[in-house]
Amino acid sequence: MKNYLAELIDSCRVKPGTKVRLKDYDPGLAGDEDIPKDERKEEANRFLKERIEILRERQELFHASDSWSILLIFQGMDTAGKDSIIRHVMTGINPQGCRVVSFKHPSINELDHNFLWRYMKELPQRGQIGVFNRSYFEEVLIVRVHPSIYKSQRIPDKLSGEEVWRSRFDDINNFERHITRNGTVILKFFLNLSKEEQRDRLLKRIEDPKKHWKFAFGDISEREHWDDYIHAYEAVLTETSTEWAPWYIIPADHKWIGRGLVASVLTTTIESMGLEYPEVSAEKRDRLSEAKKRLETDET
Amino acid sequence: MKNYLAELIDSCRVKPGTKVRLKDYDPGLAGDEDIPKDERKEEANRFLKERIEILRERQELFHASDSWSILLIFQGMDTAGKDSIIRHVMTGINPQGCRVVSFKHPSINELDHNFLWRYMKELPQRGQIGVFNRSYFEEVLIVRVHPSIYKSQRIPDKLSGEEVWRSRFDDINNFERHITRNGTVILKFFLNLSKEEQRDRLLKRIEDPKKHWKFAFGDISEREHWDDYIHAYEAVLTETSTEWAPWYIIPADHKWIGRGLVASVLTTTIESMGLEYPEVSAEKRDRLSEAKKRLETDET
Repeated sequence: MKNYLAELIDSCRVKPGTKVRLKDYDPGLAGDEDIPKDERKEEANRFLKERIEILRERQELFHASDSWSILLIFQGMDTAGKDSIIRHVMTGINPQGCRVVSFKHPSINELDHNFLWRYMKELPQRGQIGVFNRSYFEEVLIVRVHPSIYKSQRIPDKLSGEEVWRSRFDDINNFERHITRNGTVILKFFLNLSKEEQRDRLLKRIEDPKKHWKFAFGDISEREHWDDYIHAYEAVLTETSTEWAPWYIIPADHKWIGRGLVASVLTTTIESMGLEYPEVSAEKRDRLSEAKKRLETDET
Repeated sequence: MKNYLAELIDSCRVKPGTKVRLKDYDPGLAGDEDIPKDERKEEANRFLKERIEILRERQELFHASDSWSILLIFQGMDTAGKDSIIRHVMTGINPQGCRVVSFKHPSINELDHNFLWRYMKELPQRGQIGVFNRSYFEEVLIVRVHPSIYKSQRIPDKLSGEEVWRSRFDDINNFERHITRNGTVILKFFLNLSKEEQRDRLLKRIEDPKKHWKFAFGDISEREHWDDYIHAYEAVLTETSTEWAPWYIIPADHKWIGRGLVASVLTTTIESMGLEYPEVSAEKRDRLSEAKKRLETDET
């Protein structure tokens, strides 16, 4: 029997050309409600564990093949669970083959460059899984919602104007096409949180002293721009889900459901690469047996 | 009862000022030989598992405190087990707070700079555990063993000469002092492998097709410089084990023993930092209750 999570994945994938309206995607999605929640949760956890096991096995081969790389991108409103999903899916894999980059406020030096510059520098190398916790999509999200941030980027006036977001989507799609053509597989996840659930999570951060450090007052004021962010996200999901770099809209009100989905997309991707240990040429085989002889007669 | 691994740690630490002779350190060390090997191995694995559990728990706090960083350095002959020990000790921690960097041949651009330049750029940021798989110590190891590599660095003639290694040790000690003074705790591990065990491991790589990709013919020719490397390592361990950045000599002929030792040094280090969740000031507390009120009356 196919697991309900495996069935969900298809419906999460944004088909290129779809006009996305987020009200059509339920943030509270959590499987068949006729089945008790505990059972669904347990199944999701079991599913996640299995995927992590596969991932762990495949990772060495992926690393050894030294040809492809994978870039996972996580976007979502504050408290949507980006840190948490990264921790749950990626803990258990060998950090030598994985690199997580969190993007915060750009530095003055970074603002002196084109908007993709600082992200380009952090791309994963061959054989590596890279994770972007936030990404260049912020350049068409927070930057779009707050004109003052756009201003701080000091684009020449002549190049600013109405067309700027259209051009940025175009630049992003071309950039992603470039890196996928050179061996990076891109998987993009939007953690789709409801406004109600965000309120509850912010309240929890206030109530739990262990979570105070995670509480940013900015999150409350950003919340006032909720609708602007929804519009900006809808534009992103509509304009930048491509054949070569699709978006997945992950229901995020129940954290346990997203983890399994992301882990599943990732393992399916690695499995579909048809990886094999690099083949050894006849010439290398000869040299290997020569090396063997040399070692065997080595008295050390 | 104190675990035998915990007891071993002290004897692995190189006390500053000690003249190190590697023949005094047994690469085959593996606990009390009166106890069956299987039992010792099992205890070592249990010990490792416990340490990883502690590490995992402490890591979030370490990350939250956002003040210290930790740099682990692994050095050792080819096949000494650097990749393996990193995989075993670090798999299980959240990759968001950990970054492993493997240093390979320097690029032409890197050779255009001082010898610490490319390592400096990869140091862990606050709240992060950084792992260097090989490090700036190669600059006084492989570079010292092969004069042609030193030549490729194009140091002005006037600054080359007999004193160069002495100066490099000095530069490294001062560099490490600088970064420890700024909040990076440095732990350095030399994986001490015997020449016999290296031969066996190289032969295994030749015999197992799944390990062919890891086999480098260079490893065999480097093996011919074994004694030069031993001398170079002895100088490194003697000259650069300092109060602020000590070396640990880890017996590496039995892989299971080193994992527990490294994990133990790391957890002890984190535990001794006296980390606490950042305290919340009275002013922030006031703002928090204000934020709470605002959220509670938010109809969303």
